[in-house]
Amino acid sequence: MAKQKRQESQTEKDWASVLPQLLRAGQGEIIFNLLPSAIHEINNALNTILGFADLLQSETSIPKTLKEDLKTIERSGIRARELLGTLRILAGGVSPQIQITPVDLPELCQQVCSLMAAAFRRNYVKLVTDYSPQTPVILSDASRLRFVLLALLQNACDAIGSSEEGGRILIKTGQDEAGNAVVVIEDEGCGLPKEIRPHLFEPFVTTKPAGKGAGLGLLIVRQFVTELQGEIEIRETDNGTRVTLVLPSLPLQT
Amino acid sequence: MAKQKRQESQTEKDWASVLPQLLRAGQGEIIFNLLPSAIHEINNALNTILGFADLLQSETSIPKTLKEDLKTIERSGIRARELLGTLRILAGGVSPQIQITPVDLPELCQQVCSLMAAAFRRNYVKLVTDYSPQTPVILSDASRLRFVLLALLQNACDAIGSSEEGGRILIKTGQDEAGNAVVVIEDEGCGLPKEIRPHLFEPFVTTKPAGKGAGLGLLIVRQFVTELQGEIEIRETDNGTRVTLVLPSLPLQT
Repeated sequence: MAKQKRQESQTEKDWASVLPQLLRAGQGEIIFNLLPSAIHEINNALNTILGFADLLQSETSIPKTLKEDLKTIERSGIRARELLGTLRILAGGVSPQIQITPVDLPELCQQVCSLMAAAFRRNYVKLVTDYSPQTPVILSDASRLRFVLLALLQNACDAIGSSEEGGRILIKTGQDEAGNAVVVIEDEGCGLPKEIRPHLFEPFVTTKPAGKGAGLGLLIVRQFVTELQGEIEIRETDNGTRVTLVLPSLPLQT
Repeated sequence: MAKQKRQESQTEKDWASVLPQLLRAGQGEIIFNLLPSAIHEINNALNTILGFADLLQSETSIPKTLKEDLKTIERSGIRARELLGTLRILAGGVSPQIQITPVDLPELCQQVCSLMAAAFRRNYVKLVTDYSPQTPVILSDASRLRFVLLALLQNACDAIGSSEEGGRILIKTGQDEAGNAVVVIEDEGCGLPKEIRPHLFEPFVTTKPAGKGAGLGLLIVRQFVTELQGEIEIRETDNGTRVTLVLPSLPLQT
């Protein structure tokens, strides 16, 4: 009984005190709900573009030099459709049950980074990747891992953004002695305020100004990493923060 | 003291009991954070498409009939860019202070509905609009109202979706005797379960299956409508739900 009491007081919160975070999360939820439909509409437009660009390239009456321009239209359309495709996967959310498939972590990192490219540029992030050829393809849930990587990279990117001078983010993948996959994300950002550290994984804890962050990123990270039987460590370094993820290959039936 | 105590017990919650909603909200937040960057990247690709489509249309060596195809590419590119533009505005979130500008409610409804078009089709929603020419242009915060309309239309759309037979959503705008703008959103959906009604505006209250809804939509609606000095009424009808929004024109300086 005493234990239950203690647990309650740790997890209880006054809504009013987290209202800015709730409002931020609520806007996120509304956009999240909207996204599948919005993406579908944009994709329809892209398909029309790609269809006609393809058709026109086969027209013999169009000079060869101009076909290069049509090729550029096609390439841009394909690029837009790829980016939309990753967004659409994210917009589908994660399924309640873990979905185990082979996961190529460097590929997943690349996917996520290509959507974040503009954010990296805006915050003067120099992205350095180091994907070891030893990185194992693990059996895991790509959809959960995509959210985990995004949340961690967003934190790294924001940490650098708040320093205003830019800095480096290093993404490293590899293998540990036990054969698990390892992902390290290191940033040269502002680090973690001391008072936040013990509460990192609690909901609605954020260092951002009111209304700019819901403080749910690391909650997602911890929950999904736990579901995937992995481990996470967040550490201060001399000039920023290092996150280490250890992810095992899971049995196909869970 | 006694009052404070009572208020606390009403607003305190156990995180564990709302974990599915928190995880849904957390995914929404991560996507919300990502969206400005992702939209920027997709927009870059669209600008390339539109630039080359424009260039090729001025080429004299291309036969006139084929220029029609280029025109179609251009129109689709513009359509995609418009949809992305509304998404980008949403992805910017609302500013902490209310931003007062003239708001054309029918236009705002159209904007929001065009992003929801695919969701309406999927749920067999027949959308009926009735924008009275008497609808006043009000001074209000378009960015907050966009979220309010989206949240209400998502609820209406979901209510119809869960009936599996489709149904009608009516959006009506007009003016009340006091000169306020009025928006009515009526759906022929499944209605509100009795046990939910007293808790409609509380965070994390949702009728959706675990992980499918964060239950923050109506919290946003109530908060923003209050900030905009408006009123909201949610009522059962014979065959669904009717939401009535009354929105005053606000003084330019608030």
